[in-house]
Amino acid sequence: MRILIKNAQILTMTAPELQKGDILIIEDKIAAVGQVPREMLTGSEKVIEADNHLAMPGLINAHTHAAMTLLRSYADDLELMTWLHDEIWPAEDKMDAEDIYWGTMLAIAEMIKGGTTTFADMYGPFMDKVAEAVTSSGIRANLSRGCVGAADPEKIKIAENIALFEQYNNGADGRIKVWFGPHAPYTCSKEYLQKLAQAAWERGSGIHVHLAETTSELEQIKEGYGLSPVEYLAQAGIFDGPCLAAHGVWLSDEEIAFLKGKDVSVAHNPVSNMKLSSGAAPVAKMLACGLNVGLGTDGASSNNSLDMFKEMAAAAFLSKLSTMEPTSLPAYEVLKMATVGSAKALHWDKEIGTLEAGKKADLILLDLNQPHFCPWNNSVNDLVYSAKSSDVTHTIVNGQILMEERKLLTIDLAEVMAHAQKCAKRITAK
Amino acid sequence: MRILIKNAQILTMTAPELQKGDILIIEDKIAAVGQVPREMLTGSEKVIEADNHLAMPGLINAHTHAAMTLLRSYADDLELMTWLHDEIWPAEDKMDAEDIYWGTMLAIAEMIKGGTTTFADMYGPFMDKVAEAVTSSGIRANLSRGCVGAADPEKIKIAENIALFEQYNNGADGRIKVWFGPHAPYTCSKEYLQKLAQAAWERGSGIHVHLAETTSELEQIKEGYGLSPVEYLAQAGIFDGPCLAAHGVWLSDEEIAFLKGKDVSVAHNPVSNMKLSSGAAPVAKMLACGLNVGLGTDGASSNNSLDMFKEMAAAAFLSKLSTMEPTSLPAYEVLKMATVGSAKALHWDKEIGTLEAGKKADLILLDLNQPHFCPWNNSVNDLVYSAKSSDVTHTIVNGQILMEERKLLTIDLAEVMAHAQKCAKRITAK
Repeated sequence: MRILIKNAQILTMTAPELQKGDILIIEDKIAAVGQVPREMLTGSEKVIEADNHLAMPGLINAHTHAAMTLLRSYADDLELMTWLHDEIWPAEDKMDAEDIYWGTMLAIAEMIKGGTTTFADMYGPFMDKVAEAVTSSGIRANLSRGCVGAADPEKIKIAENIALFEQYNNGADGRIKVWFGPHAPYTCSKEYLQKLAQAAWERGSGIHVHLAETTSELEQIKEGYGLSPVEYLAQAGIFDGPCLAAHGVWLSDEEIAFLKGKDVSVAHNPVSNMKLSSGAAPVAKMLACGLNVGLGTDGASSNNSLDMFKEMAAAAFLSKLSTMEPTSLPAYEVLKMATVGSAKALHWDKEIGTLEAGKKADLILLDLNQPHFCPWNNSVNDLVYSAKSSDVTHTIVNGQILMEERKLLTIDLAEVMAHAQKCAKRITAK
Repeated sequence: MRILIKNAQILTMTAPELQKGDILIIEDKIAAVGQVPREMLTGSEKVIEADNHLAMPGLINAHTHAAMTLLRSYADDLELMTWLHDEIWPAEDKMDAEDIYWGTMLAIAEMIKGGTTTFADMYGPFMDKVAEAVTSSGIRANLSRGCVGAADPEKIKIAENIALFEQYNNGADGRIKVWFGPHAPYTCSKEYLQKLAQAAWERGSGIHVHLAETTSELEQIKEGYGLSPVEYLAQAGIFDGPCLAAHGVWLSDEEIAFLKGKDVSVAHNPVSNMKLSSGAAPVAKMLACGLNVGLGTDGASSNNSLDMFKEMAAAAFLSKLSTMEPTSLPAYEVLKMATVGSAKALHWDKEIGTLEAGKKADLILLDLNQPHFCPWNNSVNDLVYSAKSSDVTHTIVNGQILMEERKLLTIDLAEVMAHAQKCAKRITAK
């Protein structure tokens, strides 16, 4: 399909300046941005008049557990271990394939409505259902089977991750990438980690892992191995290929430099880190060191939404508070984290993350005709400090319009919500 | 007018439980909540079918500078003193009566769209224009003329605050309350503060003041007077009547107990405190001590929106992070701050803050049919952690519908935005 977006304020994310212009999409790619050659201005099946709208790259959620939407608002304001042991894990144990499918569809619906065009998901079992939901909804995703080694003596989960890779990597017209998901240092033995790293590198794939999220993780790994979580994962070879490390709340300056040297990316999850009292990740230090940082929401049970606009604001606020420097993490840096930073973290930056001719057409439009955008100063600041996910009017992935004037085109939201409500009721019954 | 709201999920804020039922409004008051007597179910001019909606008290913004909307996104990510001296104050010096009117109207439009039904404003000059905007828009407000003593040798600002009181207190059908606004410990001499306190107490009015916002304020008052800001204001008699102290970021345990003893209320502004790197107010300690806390957005130039839903989430997240206790400031406590806490802070709790028969009809409806509210667990948690200001469909103040299905009924938004854009351009021109 050929789509022409006319007269938008365009933020390409190759520079912080806005430009007024058009965007031409041909099939799954951006054909032209800004000045569309006159001879290409005709012949589009779809023309979107985008006066008073801003076009920007779709937001990329670099770390979530999509189907945890089913546990939204089910167990809040609890101690971390009470939350996990008494509430989350027992409910997760009851999840079947249907639950994963509908929970993921609900997450995807929420993400598309909030301008997210790609997400990195680590969950399981039944990741094939996640792949199905991604395929049918039209969104883009990096999927990994969350492998808790402590509960996997037969390495069945590793086999499932491999099967997921074989079946779905590069599937759905290239919208699905499969990586490998060792859950965390405190749930995987060194040997188990090595197996997963080997499985990933053999296939030219990557690793998605939790890292240094809480002080109790630090204590546990220190006690068990006399190492820090970074040292432990490094010994297991987890950083010897493409690696997305979620959280990174408790990293020393030396570890930040080390991870930078290894070309690891961190997925920053400010809302979850605050809500669960995990701590404030030293994001400003990471960026100063050149370590790539993406932005994620974590699962809905610890957020409780999958709203990347809320997450961007939280990232800025948390950094300014924790460093006591109001200049820390300025707006454009935050926008970079949520777009090009996340794209790079998923090793997808050649295809997504900016609006450039030749890249995949993953982009969103925001309605600027809102009181909270007035006065409009042609500044990117309010995309971080004032914008709301409800300002997103159009979400386009791979050249397909998934939301138009806030209406989802590929998802029957009423059906998804009815199923999700039913699934949630069953798994949270005590 | 007689309005019947049918079949809503009702959160009265007298208890954390939701109840399904109806609400009857007669003229400016709530006539019945929950079970409306059968004989009263007929004869309403307006019936709102509220299935799939939640009704709750309107949110009360306990501290803002409304017309600062004109400075939104104009000067972000700067050092506090650079921000104030080089950007904010020079722009404010250029503001005339028209600017204050349109800036305030823009703020009111944004607040009504976000479910705020009352705000406490400290700004000036031209507070009569703020009163005009409140009068015509239908919102409720506590107004005080911000009096910077250091720039007021003739005490003209105090005279203006008195004139504002004489003309507008209890005006607009009781929707306006006028208090007195000594700006802050660091901008007012003791004698100046005393004059304002006297002016307030003589008239049975109250005081709205900034207090202990930054460490530099603490240092300045220590250096100038050998006192803490609380001690300084106490010596000037500022706490000897109704007093709303904004921020309270840097209060000791003893000061919290002292303020509780004086029946002072604190307006907590988490977003502004994070964005400007002011610090984390010890809100959990305040509440544990019984000190009343309301919630505010501060001005749009340090937020950058006037979104009380965003502010509620920020309050919860900030407290959980700064105490490193995930149980700190649970959702219902946050909702109390934004409703009954703020109402009490404005000494308006006999009339607003909860949904009870006999109280003023200040309430909002939220559309629960949203993916981020699914699954719906009849829990108030998602009003803090997932709700968005865009979920508000109806805003009612004093029995008048100010927004219906997201359309403003008393404000011409396009006109307001056009004027505000023009005003902002002039005052921020360099």
